[in-house]
Amino acid sequence: MNKYIAEAYGTALLVFFGCGAVVLATGTGAGTAMSLLGIAFAFGIGLMVAAYSIGGISGCHINPAVTLGFLSAGRIGVGDAIGYMIGQVVGAIIGAAVLYLILSDKVGGYNVATSGLGQNGWGEGYGAGYGLTAAALVEVLITFIFVYLILQVTKPAANAAIAGLAIGLTLFVIHVVFINVTGVSVNPARSLAPALFVGGKALSQVWLFIVAPLVGGLIAGVVSRAGPNP
Amino acid sequence: MNKYIAEAYGTALLVFFGCGAVVLATGTGAGTAMSLLGIAFAFGIGLMVAAYSIGGISGCHINPAVTLGFLSAGRIGVGDAIGYMIGQVVGAIIGAAVLYLILSDKVGGYNVATSGLGQNGWGEGYGAGYGLTAAALVEVLITFIFVYLILQVTKPAANAAIAGLAIGLTLFVIHVVFINVTGVSVNPARSLAPALFVGGKALSQVWLFIVAPLVGGLIAGVVSRAGPNP
Amino acid sequence: MNKYIAEAYGTALLVFFGCGAVVLATGTGAGTAMSLLGIAFAFGIGLMVAAYSIGGISGCHINPAVTLGFLSAGRIGVGDAIGYMIGQVVGAIIGAAVLYLILSDKVGGYNVATSGLGQNGWGEGYGAGYGLTAAALVEVLITFIFVYLILQVTKPAANAAIAGLAIGLTLFVIHVVFINVTGVSVNPARSLAPALFVGGKALSQVWLFIVAPLVGGLIAGVVSRAGPNP
Amino acid sequence: MNKYIAEAYGTALLVFFGCGAVVLATGTGAGTAMSLLGIAFAFGIGLMVAAYSIGGISGCHINPAVTLGFLSAGRIGVGDAIGYMIGQVVGAIIGAAVLYLILSDKVGGYNVATSGLGQNGWGEGYGAGYGLTAAALVEVLITFIFVYLILQVTKPAANAAIAGLAIGLTLFVIHVVFINVTGVSVNPARSLAPALFVGGKALSQVWLFIVAPLVGGLIAGVVSRAGPNP
Repeated sequence: MNKYIAEAYGTALLVFFGCGAVVLATGTGAGTAMSLLGIAFAFGIGLMVAAYSIGGISGCHINPAVTLGFLSAGRIGVGDAIGYMIGQVVGAIIGAAVLYLILSDKVGGYNVATSGLGQNGWGEGYGAGYGLTAAALVEVLITFIFVYLILQVTKPAANAAIAGLAIGLTLFVIHVVFINVTGVSVNPARSLAPALFVGGKALSQVWLFIVAPLVGGLIAGVVSRAGPNP
Repeated sequence: MNKYIAEAYGTALLVFFGCGAVVLATGTGAGTAMSLLGIAFAFGIGLMVAAYSIGGISGCHINPAVTLGFLSAGRIGVGDAIGYMIGQVVGAIIGAAVLYLILSDKVGGYNVATSGLGQNGWGEGYGAGYGLTAAALVEVLITFIFVYLILQVTKPAANAAIAGLAIGLTLFVIHVVFINVTGVSVNPARSLAPALFVGGKALSQVWLFIVAPLVGGLIAGVVSRAGPNP
Repeated sequence: MNKYIAEAYGTALLVFFGCGAVVLATGTGAGTAMSLLGIAFAFGIGLMVAAYSIGGISGCHINPAVTLGFLSAGRIGVGDAIGYMIGQVVGAIIGAAVLYLILSDKVGGYNVATSGLGQNGWGEGYGAGYGLTAAALVEVLITFIFVYLILQVTKPAANAAIAGLAIGLTLFVIHVVFINVTGVSVNPARSLAPALFVGGKALSQVWLFIVAPLVGGLIAGVVSRAGPNP
Repeated sequence: MNKYIAEAYGTALLVFFGCGAVVLATGTGAGTAMSLLGIAFAFGIGLMVAAYSIGGISGCHINPAVTLGFLSAGRIGVGDAIGYMIGQVVGAIIGAAVLYLILSDKVGGYNVATSGLGQNGWGEGYGAGYGLTAAALVEVLITFIFVYLILQVTKPAANAAIAGLAIGLTLFVIHVVFINVTGVSVNPARSLAPALFVGGKALSQVWLFIVAPLVGGLIAGVVSRAGPNP
């Protein structure tokens, strides 16, 4: 695998596992507290799987907000950053397509427009019903926290072995806490892919999950670059 | 322990814990979301226990699909691979037999044909009712992801201590996401053993859980061998 | 970030995640067993996130009881300890304020006085209804256990990479076991911040969650200092 | 702390957390699937807390079956083994006594004879109702698996940092799978202490949880000693 294909593979895996848990692993009903833990593990430990699979090839960003953070921190070049982001978006769409293919073989069928594909959102009828202000604030803040963690934990060489697990658990806990607000994006590629399949409100709200994570990731890169650097 | 006995021990442990959780640890009903997390931990952390117990002896494949992956990656010889696989199948049957023995001592008895022994399956009446296409696609894909992770995470020497945990958590998250589709095999030995005790549909469907994981593992070995190798 | 700002950032993150889970991540009702696990992960893994983000800058105390433990163990100076504690209290209040801001944008509104903000407490009507003696005993003991773990696990250089995870999982398990008694403080800053927003009984009981953790942390420092030191 | 006091401290902590979760952290009813995960984490991660707190002092056996395993593996002397075991039993009783003290301050009181203190057992009316044969077989097998893991994972120096987490997660998964059979002992000290407070059937059945774990630990030591030793 070269590094751009690795980014596509990892992002496909993340969407396949994370969005997969939303539509495959829920019990009697989506959005129950029980489902939250399973979904949170699917995104978080799914990221960990990608990290230990392709970390040695591309660094496993699998998220345009993370790549933007590395760019603003001066730790990746512009050309590579563009290649990474293209790989991530293509991979996310492939991951969602495979998931959709599996759902189509369910006894009784599957209506993606009504049952969803793990898309993000806000407002009445989504999660616990938080408004745009809360959604935007949460996504900027948690993406900052997430990307800053990634930039910091990968600095000391001593953390090389543990970093994949620490980063995965960070994405896990962010889902545990904030899933009722926006479903948790922190990743434009992860949000865009299911929205393309679900359409409707999912697609009309997806702009927020492109803009807010990129803002959070950009700021995280600037702050991490300022140091101190252990 | 020599390495073939170690493989038998580890596979017995995996079946004893994983299939054990399905029949021993469920609450009011099998297949509820709550049970999923417990079962997922039993398979995933059960694998971790085996990894830290016998990793230094045999490398802890305890799965013919993993051994085939190491073979196609050129990291194990044919003779050893056959010995490993025999050990794995024998171990899995012993693990299922011990579990059956324990269930037999339950107050009110235990009917293995109706209550099962953690066997895999698909179609109406199994899990959430996914068809053969979905089942085959899922098993090939998740075995590829699982075996590729194993082959990659064990390459850098720096990962020696963390690899057992990372591999175990990978099997855990695969169960969290996909347990409603096939019960999750990714391991022919783990599927064959309970099917032999349960018989009926479990046994007539077991061919898929021998073929699909082997295909996934084979491809993973080829891809990992192609590199890059950190 | 300098080290005092880092302490403020980490403590804000801990309150934002931990108290956030109490009010954002609960399902049908607060205090159910299901919610407990999610809340416990939010505090524990939230602390881990802070540890790997700012551990290289300030050591990530983000808790006056921990800082007092380091002081009584002779591992931080008085001036730094005061700066750390100020940063922690300011950060905790910022974390609670951001959380309150998000809750205010919920459809149908949010009444912080009746629905709370993850505050600690004891007696009839809080958790499972334990008295002041139980609450005080628990908080002193679990803070001792928590701070002693932190002081010990950070001694051997070999633990540098794992310490953040081990410390986070310790805070997690303390919440799993004792959340029904006091909601688990072990951290005066974490308790003070939500109490200031909720007022009433939360504020009148907050003294215990300042005094008891400080007593536990102080003793832990003395015991750890006595050695042996690996 | 000297090493015998450290063993007492760690065993007290294990009983305080593990048995504490059984009586403090359960939701509407004991023995539900939900409670199982919390209790399993309390024992497993509680052991991890002890391991990182006192591992550098005594090696953190906190279990007579583990100490017997180290003795039969030739890795501890007889004098130390006796001192360790005395410390473990004394510590377990102190842990149970502190837990009892806290429960006594619950609004409405607490009847330890009817509500229990996290004691082990078997037969109709305990867990899912497994007989003596199942209970004995399970306890010997899971103690063997547990102690063999401990003896193996602590052999390579490279595992020094991860061992505490791996051992804790092993105890966790053993509880996930087998808690409905015996409540999971694998540790005579952990079983004896609550039985002394609860009396009745708990005390009359406690012999099994002294004998079976010691048998499992003894065999594990012999097998591990035989090698191979990495």
